[in-house]
Amino acid sequence: MLKECLENMRARTPLIHSITNYVTVNDCANVLLACGCSPVMADDIREVEEITAISNGLNINIGTLNHSTISSMSAAGKKANVLGLPVVLDPVGAGASTLRTETALMLMNEVHFTVIKGNISEMKTLVSGSGATKGVDADLADLITDATRAAAVNSAKAFARKTGAIIVITGTVDIVTDGTTAYAVHNGHPMLSKITGTGCMLSAMTAAYVAANPDNALEATLAAVCAMGLCGEKAHARMSGTDGNATFKIYLIDAIYNLYGKTLKSGAQYEIC
Amino acid sequence: MLKECLENMRARTPLIHSITNYVTVNDCANVLLACGCSPVMADDIREVEEITAISNGLNINIGTLNHSTISSMSAAGKKANVLGLPVVLDPVGAGASTLRTETALMLMNEVHFTVIKGNISEMKTLVSGSGATKGVDADLADLITDATRAAAVNSAKAFARKTGAIIVITGTVDIVTDGTTAYAVHNGHPMLSKITGTGCMLSAMTAAYVAANPDNALEATLAAVCAMGLCGEKAHARMSGTDGNATFKIYLIDAIYNLYGKTLKSGAQYEIC
Amino acid sequence: MLKECLENMRARTPLIHSITNYVTVNDCANVLLACGCSPVMADDIREVEEITAISNGLNINIGTLNHSTISSMSAAGKKANVLGLPVVLDPVGAGASTLRTETALMLMNEVHFTVIKGNISEMKTLVSGSGATKGVDADLADLITDATRAAAVNSAKAFARKTGAIIVITGTVDIVTDGTTAYAVHNGHPMLSKITGTGCMLSAMTAAYVAANPDNALEATLAAVCAMGLCGEKAHARMSGTDGNATFKIYLIDAIYNLYGKTLKSGAQYEIC
Repeated sequence: MLKECLENMRARTPLIHSITNYVTVNDCANVLLACGCSPVMADDIREVEEITAISNGLNINIGTLNHSTISSMSAAGKKANVLGLPVVLDPVGAGASTLRTETALMLMNEVHFTVIKGNISEMKTLVSGSGATKGVDADLADLITDATRAAAVNSAKAFARKTGAIIVITGTVDIVTDGTTAYAVHNGHPMLSKITGTGCMLSAMTAAYVAANPDNALEATLAAVCAMGLCGEKAHARMSGTDGNATFKIYLIDAIYNLYGKTLKSGAQYEIC
Repeated sequence: MLKECLENMRARTPLIHSITNYVTVNDCANVLLACGCSPVMADDIREVEEITAISNGLNINIGTLNHSTISSMSAAGKKANVLGLPVVLDPVGAGASTLRTETALMLMNEVHFTVIKGNISEMKTLVSGSGATKGVDADLADLITDATRAAAVNSAKAFARKTGAIIVITGTVDIVTDGTTAYAVHNGHPMLSKITGTGCMLSAMTAAYVAANPDNALEATLAAVCAMGLCGEKAHARMSGTDGNATFKIYLIDAIYNLYGKTLKSGAQYEIC
Repeated sequence: MLKECLENMRARTPLIHSITNYVTVNDCANVLLACGCSPVMADDIREVEEITAISNGLNINIGTLNHSTISSMSAAGKKANVLGLPVVLDPVGAGASTLRTETALMLMNEVHFTVIKGNISEMKTLVSGSGATKGVDADLADLITDATRAAAVNSAKAFARKTGAIIVITGTVDIVTDGTTAYAVHNGHPMLSKITGTGCMLSAMTAAYVAANPDNALEATLAAVCAMGLCGEKAHARMSGTDGNATFKIYLIDAIYNLYGKTLKSGAQYEIC
């Protein structure tokens, strides 16, 4: 199934509209191109609805939100809902500031999201309606362990049922659930946390996978999460000598560019949980 | 002639003011440095005229335009006109939204551009005053074939005469014309469309070539277009094994950094058409 | 001492809040991660104080300032002062426009900076209250020579005493002073001026070093300046064949990622001056 999800994406080459942060936007665009898709970035309120309307999916990321882009996110999201296009939310830093928390909650109120993806601290903030996280990374206190994983999965399932969205919680083990079925993804590598933008790239990629597999959004999301983790492993395996995190980022995007269905199928490590 | 254009640029090290999108701005800056020039990015209305005034050329790119930057583009462009500095317009996504189309047309009305560079869909939008394009890439329906090239060249020539600008239409074959002479450039590689920002980098580079060759803007533009295509070929030739589009981007900018007049002269593939 | 400064940074993993330009922001984030720190970028006035409050240091860079971010810089800086957090100012392009000069002076008036870092043209502008520089690079006329170095050191010392900030003047030889002690740093490589963002990355890195060494800010700043220069040397030494400035940037960040205390101690080249 993951193989078909990737192959559909490469065959259908969806156009993905991203309203995202200026820190990692270039990497998101190149990751979408590596996936065989077309990226378009536009955030002015006067054009976001039109741009969403010509797109196959929308990716909303609040990493460097501001007064102009917040209303654009809302307008584009509503337009995508009207048109039946998939919308992904990446609530970067929810819990780190009132503005981020409130913006994420407002967006969830105004827009129906197909997928909501965050780290455990961000997701706890969205579930509870408030939070306190250390910047844009997950709090150590929040990290999922074997002992706490069952509770995290149950919480994610409940949140998926409440929101109607597929929920992705990223971490050492990633959780993907639509409220009924939950997957634990074991792909990944610690180097993925040594570069900025891994999460943002995953959100953009998820929008692309889901846009190309509209009737199979759960598996498409699972495919995106496995693909990012697997490509992180491949990128790390390619490192040598004096390579560091900058080289790793290049290798990561290269691996996404060179990933095809067969490799994803054989390399994906996940289980129902 | 192309050789001299490049050598003048490396000798004169023009300062290029770019008002450009936040997706590819870092690559544009590094490409200008690779060309031996100095980049400066500034888009606040309170400083753009001053920054243009200390620059040798201006590069306007509407890739992520917004209400603040649109007026800055206009003000900087007018200042450049008053000072006799070359101005390049990259109408990214013209036709994809009303805002982009109208902004490009407004800028063409208020500013005299030395060079206008776009893909065929963007240029058709500017010529006709309206359009419908798929995001920021050219529509397949618009792609220039052998059968349609003569018509595209004639249209580009007419548009050059109407606007007084050198017109560049990028594609598998690039067209460069001042309304009298038209060149078809055969350099390039399909990998150039697998990274974001190739077009933006070309616009920035064109501003640099033209700024260093003010009395020879047509050949300077031709040199920039050949240089980008040739460096795309060189970057692709350097790829191996598990290299993907991220490595290609690094190799592309490296190739621009290492390009000198002799190589450009021998590698440029163009003809009068 | 430099060794301990670096080791403290890697051990304490400070969270650094940057309000910086959109040209080099991705590189700044990846450099902070390469240092073992966490980056967070936020510039909306409604959240900057909260984000600063959860951070260990603040980095303010006016490279692409605008009406929204200027007030955010001021608010975040004041908050950092109240909380006793270190604040670094990078007055990019001060002297190139009235807006940049006035913003830098306003910020110096409203915020107490722990470190102010600029090239010689920018620093001369701040010292004199006005200036005229060529874009964001130092004017050739301003470059420090053996003949003028003593005067530059004295001026830097006086400016450090006046502002209460550690002053860093970057150039072929970098000067670091707290008004009493002054160091001349001989690390570095001309390739560092062939990519955009070296100065911005240094500012971000300085904030990280100082945040992790609050009682030893002068040596921490010296460590950051030596580290950037040394990593530039290492990055250049790794170049070969058709490598250019894009590869150099990757190697530079890789070198920062792989730099540990022992190497910094043995490779740092500085003297009291």
